[in-house]
Amino acid sequence: MTDHLLINAALGKPVPRTPVWIMRQAGRYLPEYQAIRRQMSFLDLCHTPEKAAEVSIQPLDILGVDGVIVFSDIMVPLEGLGMDVQFIEGRGPVISDPIRSVSDISRLKPYDANVETKYLPDAIRMLVNEIGHRAPVLGFAGAPYTLACYAVEGTTSRHYHETKKFMMSDPVGFKKLLDVLADAVAELLIAQIDAGASLVQLFDTWAGALMPDQFREFALPFAQKIFERVRRPGVPMVYFVNGVAGKLKDIAQSGASVLGIDWRIGLDQVRAIVGNDIPLQGNLDPCTLFAPPEVIEERVKKVLAAAGDSPHVFNLGHGILPTVPVSHAQHLVKSVQRLGVK
Amino acid sequence: MTDHLLINAALGKPVPRTPVWIMRQAGRYLPEYQAIRRQMSFLDLCHTPEKAAEVSIQPLDILGVDGVIVFSDIMVPLEGLGMDVQFIEGRGPVISDPIRSVSDISRLKPYDANVETKYLPDAIRMLVNEIGHRAPVLGFAGAPYTLACYAVEGTTSRHYHETKKFMMSDPVGFKKLLDVLADAVAELLIAQIDAGASLVQLFDTWAGALMPDQFREFALPFAQKIFERVRRPGVPMVYFVNGVAGKLKDIAQSGASVLGIDWRIGLDQVRAIVGNDIPLQGNLDPCTLFAPPEVIEERVKKVLAAAGDSPHVFNLGHGILPTVPVSHAQHLVKSVQRLGVK
Repeated sequence: MTDHLLINAALGKPVPRTPVWIMRQAGRYLPEYQAIRRQMSFLDLCHTPEKAAEVSIQPLDILGVDGVIVFSDIMVPLEGLGMDVQFIEGRGPVISDPIRSVSDISRLKPYDANVETKYLPDAIRMLVNEIGHRAPVLGFAGAPYTLACYAVEGTTSRHYHETKKFMMSDPVGFKKLLDVLADAVAELLIAQIDAGASLVQLFDTWAGALMPDQFREFALPFAQKIFERVRRPGVPMVYFVNGVAGKLKDIAQSGASVLGIDWRIGLDQVRAIVGNDIPLQGNLDPCTLFAPPEVIEERVKKVLAAAGDSPHVFNLGHGILPTVPVSHAQHLVKSVQRLGVK
Repeated sequence: MTDHLLINAALGKPVPRTPVWIMRQAGRYLPEYQAIRRQMSFLDLCHTPEKAAEVSIQPLDILGVDGVIVFSDIMVPLEGLGMDVQFIEGRGPVISDPIRSVSDISRLKPYDANVETKYLPDAIRMLVNEIGHRAPVLGFAGAPYTLACYAVEGTTSRHYHETKKFMMSDPVGFKKLLDVLADAVAELLIAQIDAGASLVQLFDTWAGALMPDQFREFALPFAQKIFERVRRPGVPMVYFVNGVAGKLKDIAQSGASVLGIDWRIGLDQVRAIVGNDIPLQGNLDPCTLFAPPEVIEERVKKVLAAAGDSPHVFNLGHGILPTVPVSHAQHLVKSVQRLGVK
């Protein structure tokens, strides 16, 4: 889809109002999503393009967001590389065969994004067919450092200290892993663009927890490699680093077309460091959606004011939380679409 | 204790080398601490000044740190205010009667730091008697916003969304709670200084997860109130906000004499915003202590280089993790004491 509000804003073109979508907008806070999850597991849903497309469309109909991100999970390329990924209710992803040293990397299998993870571009093709006339379809993948956190740790973790231990003890070996992951992620994003995704986002959920020089050594170069390889005319690429406030100068060098910003820093502060040209995406605190509607509106105004006149795609500063009332998410979208008129 | 390396550095005076202590240095990573914990619960240890003093001294003897922070917990003033605080192994603090609305605040009892929490200044007095000639004794307390997170949520939480919901739904009521907590914390810090603490630190563990304008409304003014009230000549006050990168200009206005910085931003980046005068404390990633000794040393060098010639107290960027090898913590302290010579 070309000439759409969301894509134009993400490309830095003038738009009549600020567009809005929500990270994890297809997800557990929606009863319609829960109804489908009662029929099938999380991974089965990822693997079944018809169903993945169905839940992807739910927030378009229910919230009226300006873009439809495909339902999937950042873990799918790890599964594609042959790792044993399971999802355990309440625990998230669990990998029974984590990579703890450079020799474990050889266990990974060759990966073709259009074969091992064919279901993902398939879901995007279905989405484009079904709702491409109404809204742009967005693709995504996890960034190499964040995927390495799961591949090494084997589970979600508070500190990812096994990952950092590997990284610091054998930086050369750890970079081999990051290189394999960067290749896989680039292929996966290209497959999504080839299938019709109009924008792609790279999620670096754990890279904000690195010291800045380590971010520059172990996260940034691998994101840069991906953006170089994936770049296509007219297809914006978002780099979202959670906890990014200490890495702003660095992400401005990532080659991404849009910088995704979490809520712990103001967009005005971000602008002071990265300048006014590059589009920003964000950055309302996800917890805001527990506040009364009139407060949500006030908070939206503050984010819009901090964003100013420079290119901006409205989003939360991280994924929507599972216990948020749907009516509050609806109110958020309506508020941005009303208050964001230029 | 006057004219000590650590206190002088924290006051911004010239020192012959960078001093070092470690947040949570008296804690679970030490077998000697674990031995005492096998005899008594966490809260009993807080409540028993002889034993609290004993574990406080352990890192002085075992690691050779430049200061002795009293063993205690930020929850003690909540207990002093009459809340039912328990510690459950593996879960942390659990409060059975959380404060969920302004009317719950009236349940809190009058609090005299030297009565309800007498054990804490008592522990400090014992420490000063026992090791005051060898090292300065450090006191601490949790900051009002962070204490409110526990008081409202009733437990540790990933998002503290009940707290933020209360804050956004009833900002006036929430500030009443923050005011009560600020009074209690100020009294507790004054009691510690009166007992002989040479430096005090205010821990604002969760305030970094606020949006910056909310930080300025709900965290900063209450920290400022405390620093105003607690200020004593020659006694430095540290303000540690975890995840502080988006709030640097704000904490520079807190009235603290030292800014505690977590590891997600470089001290050189911090200096560019807060200037060269105010002493900084930090900021090695706690996970560094899982790396081999030679890497720990390299990482120490980087932090010292980023700190430059301006006043600096070396510390981790957050508390030491429970599974760190003691020999690595020893190596950290030795490395700073060798490499930090001016």
